Amino acid sequence: MKGGAATPDIRVGQGALGILAGGGPIPGQVARAARDAGRPVFVIGFQGFAEPAVIENFPHEYVRLGAAGRMLELLRQHDCRDLVLVGPVRRPSLLSLRPDAEGTRILAKIGAAAFLGDDGMLAAVVRVLGEEGFTILGAHEVMETMLGASGVVSRLKPDAAAWGDIHRGIEVARALGSVDVGQGCIVQQGIVLAVEAVEGTDQMLARAAGLARPGPGGVLIKLVKPGQDRRTDLPTIGPRTLVAAAGAGLRGVAFEAGGTLLTDRAACVAEADRLGLFLFGIDPDVAHAPAQETDR
Amino acid sequence: MKGGAATPDIRVGQGALGILAGGGPIPGQVARAARDAGRPVFVIGFQGFAEPAVIENFPHEYVRLGAAGRMLELLRQHDCRDLVLVGPVRRPSLLSLRPDAEGTRILAKIGAAAFLGDDGMLAAVVRVLGEEGFTILGAHEVMETMLGASGVVSRLKPDAAAWGDIHRGIEVARALGSVDVGQGCIVQQGIVLAVEAVEGTDQMLARAAGLARPGPGGVLIKLVKPGQDRRTDLPTIGPRTLVAAAGAGLRGVAFEAGGTLLTDRAACVAEADRLGLFLFGIDPDVAHAPAQETDR
Repeated sequence: MKGGAATPDIRVGQGALGILAGGGPIPGQVARAARDAGRPVFVIGFQGFAEPAVIENFPHEYVRLGAAGRMLELLRQHDCRDLVLVGPVRRPSLLSLRPDAEGTRILAKIGAAAFLGDDGMLAAVVRVLGEEGFTILGAHEVMETMLGASGVVSRLKPDAAAWGDIHRGIEVARALGSVDVGQGCIVQQGIVLAVEAVEGTDQMLARAAGLARPGPGGVLIKLVKPGQDRRTDLPTIGPRTLVAAAGAGLRGVAFEAGGTLLTDRAACVAEADRLGLFLFGIDPDVAHAPAQETDR
Repeated sequence: MKGGAATPDIRVGQGALGILAGGGPIPGQVARAARDAGRPVFVIGFQGFAEPAVIENFPHEYVRLGAAGRMLELLRQHDCRDLVLVGPVRRPSLLSLRPDAEGTRILAKIGAAAFLGDDGMLAAVVRVLGEEGFTILGAHEVMETMLGASGVVSRLKPDAAAWGDIHRGIEVARALGSVDVGQGCIVQQGIVLAVEAVEGTDQMLARAAGLARPGPGGVLIKLVKPGQDRRTDLPTIGPRTLVAAAGAGLRGVAFEAGGTLLTDRAACVAEADRLGLFLFGIDPDVAHAPAQETDR
């Protein structure tokens, strides 16, 4: 999708925009943006994940994750050809999926191997939907303004100690991402306090509060996994993330610029400034100043 | 220390055996083994970590982690030339150490860079103690019987699904270890439920209970970090680990054979059998049968 001739636009596609909605506010934001642009939308809310308050203002239906046949049926009924997968879904086990007939057929195509990693499964789902004739857009492709840019976003910026933590966090998040686990970690004074697996960022932040050392607080680092399909499950930061980070005694949040969704950029910045946190978009491939400070 | 001419023996060395004691029961077991063999011991209990019930039957003194001068003084006073570092110590921050004069001198030698990883610091401590004229033994060198061997230890053994989880866990623990973080993770049906950082295995097991999926339970995998100095902080499994693993709904525990301390082997096996868990020593460099089952 990178380097494509034109950025897909929610106003240009044919038919309705199908939104496969996990948790959080972003599915509603995408739906609103499309509707405001005059394009019809249809939302499939994943049962147990999609938030009613977020999707109930739009045409929608709740569907079990495993009920792939029902999903395809609904998407065709509502003339959806372009799809967006957006909002976190807690990774299901193969057994808890309880696939319907279509789901079983798709699972056979995907293969159980796809269950040995988060991206494995999501990438397979995108591939299969593509084979079914749908075009899959990334949330960041339909709402470019949501992608956090490089550099400081908040009033505060990281000091030398925070940069040390950020560089350590990049190293750890990369290693994790290389085996397709998690997207984040928390580092304080060089110590890796917590590493994210399926529990999610909020739960990781909650436990970091009890693991913090005296002295300057740590940093939450969130990166895109190397090789991650950017149409699925991009790291997301919202105002709630900043509140939780402050509650854990952190001094700031560093996210991968160009690869992280800020659910409400203005509210994120306002929360960061109110709570005295920095919010910084990093390019993990570039050594940021003052990198030399971290090698002392 | 590997491949040395002779295994150091607690009965052969000169002077008393100095035991630098963190938490858990192993410091007491090492002290008892040495005393039973007729060698005097002196225990330095790290304040806030060493358990009074474990070390108070032996000549001992509590010392703050940062009070390196006091430690060296005590070790010399009690004629300790051979040292064992044993029992977990929660990783301190540079600031919380509050080093004494000697501690400050040693810290200057170690350099703050050592604080950017668990082993970095421990390896530096071992190096500095060596320069001070001490010989550092590993707990496994003084108590060879404590090292878990390869193969099945319990009555139950891993089935094909558990082997899939074990192989995924090896991959993840290796990636983590390569950046000097943690020693363990929990995998269920191919899903990495939790990854260990500073919180320790018990806390990781506690949270895994709430993250488990329906269906067959997961596996705890503990490995030595690649390049880890085996005289410091080897992965440890005790009967409590097995109780916590059962509480988290796991089906078994896989540990690195030859690199993991079983605090009380008989009790570990008894608990595993009582709780219906497998306990298995793996060689992560060798594909264990039935490895082919995991690629389906």
